[in-house]
Amino acid sequence: MTLPRNLTQFESLALDSPLNLADGHARSDLTPSQARIVDALPKLFAEAAERPVGELEAEAHRTFLTSLGQRDYPAGAVLSCYSSSVAMQILAQALATRIGTVALVHPTFDNIPDILRGAGLSLIPVPENDIQARGDCVFVTTPNNPTGKVLSEAGLRDLAAQCAERDVILALDTSFRGFDPRSHFDHYSVLRASGCRWAVIEDTGKLWPTLDLKAGLLIASENIGIPIADIHSDILLGISPLVLVLVQRFAEDAAVGGLADLHRFIAGNRETVRSGLAGLPGVTFPDPDSRVSVERIGLGRRSAVDVWSALREHNVYTLPCHQFHWADPASGANTLRIALARPAGTLSAAVRVLRSVLTG
Amino acid sequence: MTLPRNLTQFESLALDSPLNLADGHARSDLTPSQARIVDALPKLFAEAAERPVGELEAEAHRTFLTSLGQRDYPAGAVLSCYSSSVAMQILAQALATRIGTVALVHPTFDNIPDILRGAGLSLIPVPENDIQARGDCVFVTTPNNPTGKVLSEAGLRDLAAQCAERDVILALDTSFRGFDPRSHFDHYSVLRASGCRWAVIEDTGKLWPTLDLKAGLLIASENIGIPIADIHSDILLGISPLVLVLVQRFAEDAAVGGLADLHRFIAGNRETVRSGLAGLPGVTFPDPDSRVSVERIGLGRRSAVDVWSALREHNVYTLPCHQFHWADPASGANTLRIALARPAGTLSAAVRVLRSVLTG
Repeated sequence: MTLPRNLTQFESLALDSPLNLADGHARSDLTPSQARIVDALPKLFAEAAERPVGELEAEAHRTFLTSLGQRDYPAGAVLSCYSSSVAMQILAQALATRIGTVALVHPTFDNIPDILRGAGLSLIPVPENDIQARGDCVFVTTPNNPTGKVLSEAGLRDLAAQCAERDVILALDTSFRGFDPRSHFDHYSVLRASGCRWAVIEDTGKLWPTLDLKAGLLIASENIGIPIADIHSDILLGISPLVLVLVQRFAEDAAVGGLADLHRFIAGNRETVRSGLAGLPGVTFPDPDSRVSVERIGLGRRSAVDVWSALREHNVYTLPCHQFHWADPASGANTLRIALARPAGTLSAAVRVLRSVLTG
Repeated sequence: MTLPRNLTQFESLALDSPLNLADGHARSDLTPSQARIVDALPKLFAEAAERPVGELEAEAHRTFLTSLGQRDYPAGAVLSCYSSSVAMQILAQALATRIGTVALVHPTFDNIPDILRGAGLSLIPVPENDIQARGDCVFVTTPNNPTGKVLSEAGLRDLAAQCAERDVILALDTSFRGFDPRSHFDHYSVLRASGCRWAVIEDTGKLWPTLDLKAGLLIASENIGIPIADIHSDILLGISPLVLVLVQRFAEDAAVGGLADLHRFIAGNRETVRSGLAGLPGVTFPDPDSRVSVERIGLGRRSAVDVWSALREHNVYTLPCHQFHWADPASGANTLRIALARPAGTLSAAVRVLRSVLTG
C-alpha cells in the first residue's frame, strides 16, 4: 500500500466513512440554538444581501474575536480569508518576499511546514516546550495541533520581547483557540505592547458544525513590512457575506453559553476515549492537559500506521502522527490522533473498535 | 491621490456603494426559481450534512459542467477549490515546481499575472487575437475578461495540437464560460483528443447571486506532470458540502431555463449601457460581440482614471482598464470596464451618471 503524502490526504480517505475520526473539522450535531440559526438561513441570506459588507465584516470580526477574549486587535487590519490555510498561504507568500528562514513549532499540522516550504522558505524546528525567537520569523500554533499545548500569557510576552529585540517576526496560528480558555487572554494587547512585528491567523472553522462555512482571519501589525494586503487582494475581494452573518450568529450563541456547552461536549468525548481505552498495556495519553478537539493516543510499541491500517479495515479512520513531526517523523511513529468533534455515539462506536484492535 | 495597486483593490473601494459597477461578481436579484432554492436552505443544509460528500461533489461537478456543455471531463480529477483564484494559486505553484515561463493572454484580469509572478514564473504576453503555444505553458482566459473574446473550437484544436507537438502545457481559465454559448462546445473532448498536457479552471462564482458561495474547479490531464493534487491538499481538504448542494441546485435551475434567462438579462443590461451612452463623441464599445457580464467602454481621448475618479465623486464605481493590460498599461489608459450583473435599475442610474460625466 502507498501511504498518503500528507495528513490532509489521510483525511481525504475518511471523508465518506460514518466513522471518520480523521480530520479536525467540526462534525458534531447542531445544538438546539445552533439549529435555530440554520433554520433562519433564508432570512440571514436576505440580511447578508442587503447590508453593506464592510459593516457585516466588522461586526462578525468583533463578535467572534471578543467572544474569545481578543479585544485589542487592529480592527482596520483584519483580512477575511476563505479559511485559515488560505490565510497561511497568503502570509507565507508575503514572508517569502522579504525573509528566508522561519523557526516553526515542532510538532504541528504538516500543511503549515508544507505551505511555508512551498513559498520558498527554509525551516528550523523549535520544540513546543522551548520556543525561542530564531530565524527571521518564529511561527507558533497555539493551542497546538495535535498536542493542545498553549503558549501562556507570560510565554507570549517573553517571546514577543525577544522578537522585538532581535527584529524577528512573530507569527501565531490560533485556529484551536476557541477550545481552550487558557488561550483567551488578549494576545493583541500583549503583541502591541511589545512593539515587535507580528501576524496572527484566527479561524472560525474548527468550532461549529457549519458544514465548513467559515472564515480564516489574517491580522498583522502595521510595522510588519511584508505585502500581506497586496497578496490577499491577488486571491480574493472578500468572503461570502452570508458566511460573515453566520459567523456573527454562531459567535453570539457561543458568547451566551454555546462555548461552555462546546467545552463540556469535547471534555465528555475526551473522557469517552480515555475511559474506553483504560487499562490497555502500553496505551498512554501524552497530552493530559489538552482541551482541543483532538486527542493523541500513545500506542507503546505499536506502529501507528499499522493501527491506522487495521482500523481502516473496520471503516474507522484516524491519523497516524508521524507527519505532525515534520522534522523528525520517527518521533511520531507510535502515536495516533483522533478527532473529538463528533457525535458522542460515533465516537463511542469508534473507540470500541479501537480497543479491540489494540487488544488483538 | 494614491491609486490602488491592482484591480481587486479598485473593486474593494466600491464594496459598500449601492452603485458598485466595479467587480465582476454576480450581484443581480434572485430570480423567482432561485429565490425558491434560497428559501429551501435549511433543508439543503440537512441534506448536505447527511449525504456522503464524495457523492455530493461528483453530482455538483456533473450538473454544473454538463449544463455548460462540458461532458468529457475526467470525473476523478476534478478538484474543488474555494474560488477560481484559489485554483489559480494552486495551479501557479504546481507549475512553478517544474517550469519557468508562461505565455499569458493579453489583456486579462491582473490577478492572473500577479499570481503567476508571485509563484516565481516569468511571463510572455500573447495577444488574444493571435494565441500561439510559447514558453513552457500557454495560459488563456476564455471567454476573456474584460474583452469577452472566445477561443473557438477550431482555435482550441489548433492550439492544443501545437501544445502537444511542442510539449507546452495548455491552461485555460473558463470562469466566464456560462455567459457565452459559443464557449459551450466540449473543451475536454478537444483537449483529450489532442494528447497535450492541459489544465482547466472552471468557476461557478460569476453566474448566480449566491452571495459568493461558490466553487472554483481545477481539472488537469493525467499526464500534466506537476503536483497539483499535493498542493491542493496543502490548502484544503474540501469545500463546504452546502456550497456543493447550492451549486447543484442553481445548475439544475440553469439547465431548465435559468441560463437562457441570465443571457437575456445580461444582453438587456448591455443594451442599456450602449443605448444610454449612444451619440457621445469619442465613446465606443470595443467588444461589439461580447456576451460576458462586463462591458468595456472606449473613452476616446479621455483618461479612464480621470473618468473613474469623477464617477467616484457620484458614488459610481467602475474599473479603469490599464491594469488589465498587464504588459502594456498605456494601451488600457482610455478604456473603462463596467459590470453588467447588477439589478437593471442600478445599472440605469449609474449609466445616467456616466453619461453626464462623459458629457461634462
